[in-house]
Amino acid sequence: MYTNLSSEALGAEKKTISQIYEGYCEKKLKLNMARGIPSTAQLDLSEGLLTAVDSSEACVTDECDTRSYGQLDGLKEAKILMAAIMEVPPEEVIIGGTASLNLMYDTITRAMTRGICGHAPWGRQDSVKFICPSPGYDRHFSICQHFGIEMIPCAMGPQGPDMDAVEALVRDPAVKGIWCVPKFQNPTGIVYSDDTVRRIAALSPAAPDFRVLWDNAYAVHGLYDEESPLLNVRQAALEAGNAELVIQFTSTSKITFAGGGISAMSAGPMTRAWSLESLFIQTICYDKVNQLRHVRFLKDLDGVRAQMRRQAEVLRPKFEAVDGILTRDLSGLASWTAPRGGYFISLDVFPGTAKRVVALLKQAGVTVTGAGATWPYGRDPEDKNIRIAPSYPPVSELCTAMELLCVCAKLAALEKLTEN
Amino acid sequence: MYTNLSSEALGAEKKTISQIYEGYCEKKLKLNMARGIPSTAQLDLSEGLLTAVDSSEACVTDECDTRSYGQLDGLKEAKILMAAIMEVPPEEVIIGGTASLNLMYDTITRAMTRGICGHAPWGRQDSVKFICPSPGYDRHFSICQHFGIEMIPCAMGPQGPDMDAVEALVRDPAVKGIWCVPKFQNPTGIVYSDDTVRRIAALSPAAPDFRVLWDNAYAVHGLYDEESPLLNVRQAALEAGNAELVIQFTSTSKITFAGGGISAMSAGPMTRAWSLESLFIQTICYDKVNQLRHVRFLKDLDGVRAQMRRQAEVLRPKFEAVDGILTRDLSGLASWTAPRGGYFISLDVFPGTAKRVVALLKQAGVTVTGAGATWPYGRDPEDKNIRIAPSYPPVSELCTAMELLCVCAKLAALEKLTEN
Repeated sequence: MYTNLSSEALGAEKKTISQIYEGYCEKKLKLNMARGIPSTAQLDLSEGLLTAVDSSEACVTDECDTRSYGQLDGLKEAKILMAAIMEVPPEEVIIGGTASLNLMYDTITRAMTRGICGHAPWGRQDSVKFICPSPGYDRHFSICQHFGIEMIPCAMGPQGPDMDAVEALVRDPAVKGIWCVPKFQNPTGIVYSDDTVRRIAALSPAAPDFRVLWDNAYAVHGLYDEESPLLNVRQAALEAGNAELVIQFTSTSKITFAGGGISAMSAGPMTRAWSLESLFIQTICYDKVNQLRHVRFLKDLDGVRAQMRRQAEVLRPKFEAVDGILTRDLSGLASWTAPRGGYFISLDVFPGTAKRVVALLKQAGVTVTGAGATWPYGRDPEDKNIRIAPSYPPVSELCTAMELLCVCAKLAALEKLTEN
Repeated sequence: MYTNLSSEALGAEKKTISQIYEGYCEKKLKLNMARGIPSTAQLDLSEGLLTAVDSSEACVTDECDTRSYGQLDGLKEAKILMAAIMEVPPEEVIIGGTASLNLMYDTITRAMTRGICGHAPWGRQDSVKFICPSPGYDRHFSICQHFGIEMIPCAMGPQGPDMDAVEALVRDPAVKGIWCVPKFQNPTGIVYSDDTVRRIAALSPAAPDFRVLWDNAYAVHGLYDEESPLLNVRQAALEAGNAELVIQFTSTSKITFAGGGISAMSAGPMTRAWSLESLFIQTICYDKVNQLRHVRFLKDLDGVRAQMRRQAEVLRPKFEAVDGILTRDLSGLASWTAPRGGYFISLDVFPGTAKRVVALLKQAGVTVTGAGATWPYGRDPEDKNIRIAPSYPPVSELCTAMELLCVCAKLAALEKLTEN
């Protein structure tokens, strides 16, 4: 966009864009696009959840009284529901509390303190490393950093992680895991190709306690009436003789209530038994009444799909608005993804300016995910990636914020191009 | 009871009791009194909880939309409610998921992996020990055992733990904590005396990362229209200059739903900040819709007290039935507690026979808490303590089970007395 301009022209353009930016600053905006938060309209879609279990009698199932203790690994019916989302057998599922992140954290904690399935605790091993396809989900990286697990970034491409790099990295016995968001990846929105899934499922890591943490947070979160098929990783792993390799996670946070849903994990028989062994010590049971609410409200996979079509109707215009504004204002200067589902758009601005763009936005009253957050240790090597979360604001506010973001991206690029 | 009998008389009595026991076996009973599970009648008391938040609008408070992310440490209103139960300021409270046990487990996990408030992780210290007043709560002991924390039993008396022993033990810098159920203790039902609370609050442990884990599970769980006052441990600790010494825990598991309540902890400012630092990595938020349900349903401490009076009406006849049968059938042979609240009665049978009594019960179809469970590592040094949990069965079944238990206690004692 600016590459063929003379330095005088760049200076003039910078002045123009600066003035536009100042105009935005005067508007005293106050918008937050930092996280993938469902909008009120989306939350309203699950009003029926609130009354799905509305009497003492309704709490009692063939299996148990959901109001009481028991069913540590979850209600059978909830396992069936969440198993359908994860495409695994219900007997491999464990139902958790509101946040699947907590199930992931617990898994890492168990590995740190007890070791996976009889292997030495990671906390007592000299070096523990994780492969972190980047850009990726900051909360995954935070867990690693919290426990002192060394993170090795690995490139995310349109088909998924760079599998040549991954296959080379797992030869190191200190490499104990890889974070994957296989469908509508956070933040790129890409879906892992069949080949990527097959190669992940067929990994032969040097470490026997290596696990793939498969965070299928957006398993049913398509924006369009189309299939975005993800190869069944469990099936692929079984075919590769890797029954214990993959631990899957998902939740209803973005199906029903972000702050009142249910989460689930699934794993091979040994890894599941190992998880339950600790879970039995850790807690009495998760909220079974809320599990039952979800079963009654969503019913089955068809019910989930119908709910997600309603969610998509609210979300789709926002994603399209973002893409439209970026295309209009930043073509030639930046690149971005055009996801068919999920919660995020990944924007690469002019190299070396992401931090500056985020700072400019903040100064003008718009909060986005911190620059660098999508990389381990917050270190984006090219300082170019910004995660855009279009779900929360109404379309009009979203458009204002995106137009401002484009102004900031231009201004930061012009500042860079006119340096000394 | 049997001490003055000749060996012939003992033999004859053993024959009689054996026949009675055989009679019970033929009844093919199937009763479970293993855990302190609320009865259906108790759970029905909280039917209103299910519809306390029944529309989208009802989910939104002055503070936030409870359906969405955020409020990691809990809704303000929920903190006020749980703070009233724990008698602490709301700003010291963190609200958790269904189980306070999980908050305790998380606390120990953080101490193991990260160390408490900047001190070395317990997992990297050569020796970590906990004081375990016994008989005590098996799930506390399981957490210690799970993490390889050495448990040091310490006698429970009618006023609480043997404080001379506790004060001596904390001089060892490897001693990092003590488990306390200060009110209606599990399983004895005793309430810590003011003096005990003051001495605990004034402990000067050698370890700077020593903490009192104050599991006030039965804070409002009296069976009678009377106060069973427990000295405010936070206040006492503050007076002793020990603001960070005590971490409190409680839950609504036995106020509303055992499998769908909310839990809470409170701690001094540094310990709370240290907990939140990890919690921020661990999860997004707990179920705020359920927190709001509890606020709307229970309202305030008066509402909680009214609810607990209704609970007591269901529970009291059961505790009194157990005491009546024990008094009638085991006076002179066994001793037991007569709690004014809580969920358990602690029964000491003839020394060396608790395991046998539990086995006899099991053989006749009645499951009680395993003998030894109330001691660290399941090792009751005198093999005499059995925890009785009268809450779940209807009174008639409870009486049958207790009568059988008395028969088993007699038979086991007679077996012991007629050995070789």
